[in-house]
Amino acid sequence: MLITLLTDFGTADYFVAAMKGVMLSRTPGAAFVDISHHVPPQDVQAAAFALLAVYDVFPAGTVHLAVVDPGVGSERRPVAVVTDRYRFVGPDNGLFSYVLDREPGARLFHLRDERFFRHPVSTTFHGRDVFAPAAAALAAGVEPGQLGPELTDPVRLPPLRPQRAHDGRLRASIVHIDHFGNCVTNVTRADLPPDPDGPGLCLEVAGREIRTLRRFYAEGEPEPGALFAIWASAGFLEIAANRDSAARLLGVRRGEEVWVSLPGVEYEIRL
Amino acid sequence: MLITLLTDFGTADYFVAAMKGVMLSRTPGAAFVDISHHVPPQDVQAAAFALLAVYDVFPAGTVHLAVVDPGVGSERRPVAVVTDRYRFVGPDNGLFSYVLDREPGARLFHLRDERFFRHPVSTTFHGRDVFAPAAAALAAGVEPGQLGPELTDPVRLPPLRPQRAHDGRLRASIVHIDHFGNCVTNVTRADLPPDPDGPGLCLEVAGREIRTLRRFYAEGEPEPGALFAIWASAGFLEIAANRDSAARLLGVRRGEEVWVSLPGVEYEIRL
Amino acid sequence: MLITLLTDFGTADYFVAAMKGVMLSRTPGAAFVDISHHVPPQDVQAAAFALLAVYDVFPAGTVHLAVVDPGVGSERRPVAVVTDRYRFVGPDNGLFSYVLDREPGARLFHLRDERFFRHPVSTTFHGRDVFAPAAAALAAGVEPGQLGPELTDPVRLPPLRPQRAHDGRLRASIVHIDHFGNCVTNVTRADLPPDPDGPGLCLEVAGREIRTLRRFYAEGEPEPGALFAIWASAGFLEIAANRDSAARLLGVRRGEEVWVSLPGVEYEIRL
Repeated sequence: MLITLLTDFGTADYFVAAMKGVMLSRTPGAAFVDISHHVPPQDVQAAAFALLAVYDVFPAGTVHLAVVDPGVGSERRPVAVVTDRYRFVGPDNGLFSYVLDREPGARLFHLRDERFFRHPVSTTFHGRDVFAPAAAALAAGVEPGQLGPELTDPVRLPPLRPQRAHDGRLRASIVHIDHFGNCVTNVTRADLPPDPDGPGLCLEVAGREIRTLRRFYAEGEPEPGALFAIWASAGFLEIAANRDSAARLLGVRRGEEVWVSLPGVEYEIRL
Repeated sequence: MLITLLTDFGTADYFVAAMKGVMLSRTPGAAFVDISHHVPPQDVQAAAFALLAVYDVFPAGTVHLAVVDPGVGSERRPVAVVTDRYRFVGPDNGLFSYVLDREPGARLFHLRDERFFRHPVSTTFHGRDVFAPAAAALAAGVEPGQLGPELTDPVRLPPLRPQRAHDGRLRASIVHIDHFGNCVTNVTRADLPPDPDGPGLCLEVAGREIRTLRRFYAEGEPEPGALFAIWASAGFLEIAANRDSAARLLGVRRGEEVWVSLPGVEYEIRL
Repeated sequence: MLITLLTDFGTADYFVAAMKGVMLSRTPGAAFVDISHHVPPQDVQAAAFALLAVYDVFPAGTVHLAVVDPGVGSERRPVAVVTDRYRFVGPDNGLFSYVLDREPGARLFHLRDERFFRHPVSTTFHGRDVFAPAAAALAAGVEPGQLGPELTDPVRLPPLRPQRAHDGRLRASIVHIDHFGNCVTNVTRADLPPDPDGPGLCLEVAGREIRTLRRFYAEGEPEPGALFAIWASAGFLEIAANRDSAARLLGVRRGEEVWVSLPGVEYEIRL
């Protein structure tokens, strides 16, 4: 009965504890793992990325409860997403987009049966009154179909994929900046030719060219502030700096454009 | 054997882990939920409010361990508060005031029996040496009366209630500002006439008048920065802003005065 | 099956959750206590101190997983440290120095058997792929010797001890500044004469002399901003201020020199 939590609630307030209290009241013995409560407020895309990066290291049967919910109380639907191994609970606002992209067989359910809600249902905290009870029910073995009817039209974010430009380059972007200032792009090995680790790979970002691809952070000369690319742990190409923050050195934020030149592919020089 | 923790220790140091280690050494299998460790340093009132907002969503039998303790080592008494459903452990400095206001039948015990302490007892960290062991003992089923004699004179904070002014208005205040910048007041539905959600409700705060009462955050036109009142999840009237921080927009801090005009009640105009 | 975690990963990213997910996949029922994830990035010494301060309050059998690992992917060795009561897992970069100083009988093992790794092993996140699996295995009862061969040459930090100067004073330093701004030095009672709490103890730091030794924080007159010394909860002499941040008042950072004059010992006046 493992339940993970991902929210934008922060950890200063009682909000996360309220959800856990409700779940423990309904499913005694539930165990929790916090993924993060520091998603930028109301940033659905950031939450979708965090979920993608980590959901599949958990044991089969884990329930992932994700609440980044600017539309709380409005008509946006509360949903459960069900895959072979996992169940996800949260608002239908795109939060599960990237998981759905990876899990084509996933099924979606509308959490509509009020018997599973905590009453009275507030209009401001569905995390406590709607989502936590649903997660607790699923963790306890309730079939998703009991919580409400199946849906087929989830809200989707634009896919997390770089685009191929006319000159053959990839137009990618920084989709996450981590605690160390590493800049994670949306480029995976599948977006590049079979041997993407050979010479020739070039990233252009914020007026800088990055041609060094490292295998690990501490590789090579300890040149302070040297920027390099690296295949990071969630499978995405990352821009990092030698014991420094690449984001600070580059002066970039999430969303910054990154142009990736493919080795062995003709392309024009970008001025 | 569920124990919640509420402190001003922050999460960078080892303090919270030390309390958990002590509790697990004495009561193997204890499970923890962190309410918050980001209470402003030594702010007993903030901790009292957080506890009030969340204590009763937990299952019966939960032990709430709360340590905001500027007087550690001094004569202030370590206490346990016992209600029908819960037990609370912490310093007798007002931390349990709001819970005591809601739980008139609560009993209080002085944690004086040193057999339950961790020895040697430090003079600087009773969280680890006095309170955590007591919480672990209570979670393991020890009767509160075994930990020390009953008390009847707990330290109390001023009640968390607005005052009625001569002109009929309520003189309330902001008692908490949350992670999103929402400003929680000390006004509950019980403080207002039977239909407080009708037209006429007016909040005056920091030179602004707020006459909009929303049912949920995303209700109505997405006018950026619009301020509104809303009944928030812990039962208090809150001042919020449309996808923005009301606290920042108003330039207010906790303690700021809020005047509430009651619909259907005569009152003078405040200049 | 208790596992503590100490890292410099922060809590905004999914990194900590990834390690927990891996451990739960391998050792269902593992329970976690977070010591801290806010070690300053790549600050091995800070992590070593935090571990020292708290490791021995946990029940026997606890596995302490510590990952502050600037050399991830390089030749630095992944290790397990084994004492009578505890097992520690992390990189061999000095992180376990202070524990080894206190535990002369500890044994060290090189985590080399790839059967215990998570595959494919990334080059950037051994916390997830090497250390977490090893911690899970040890928590499940695997013998340390099965994970790899014994080692006898761990990387060591300089010992955490003050030095005796020619004039008899101790040349100490601030080794940690806590959440409240208290400045923890590396001075223990063992470094001082038998009655170190008598009159005469004098600390010189940042141009200030501190001659007051308090038993507890709230002792004596509530003189705002008064600095004093106090024996803190982890056994080290600490510089604190009355309901204020000593670090801020002194304008010091970790590493700042502190001269301690021993009562009853002749020493020259330092100009």
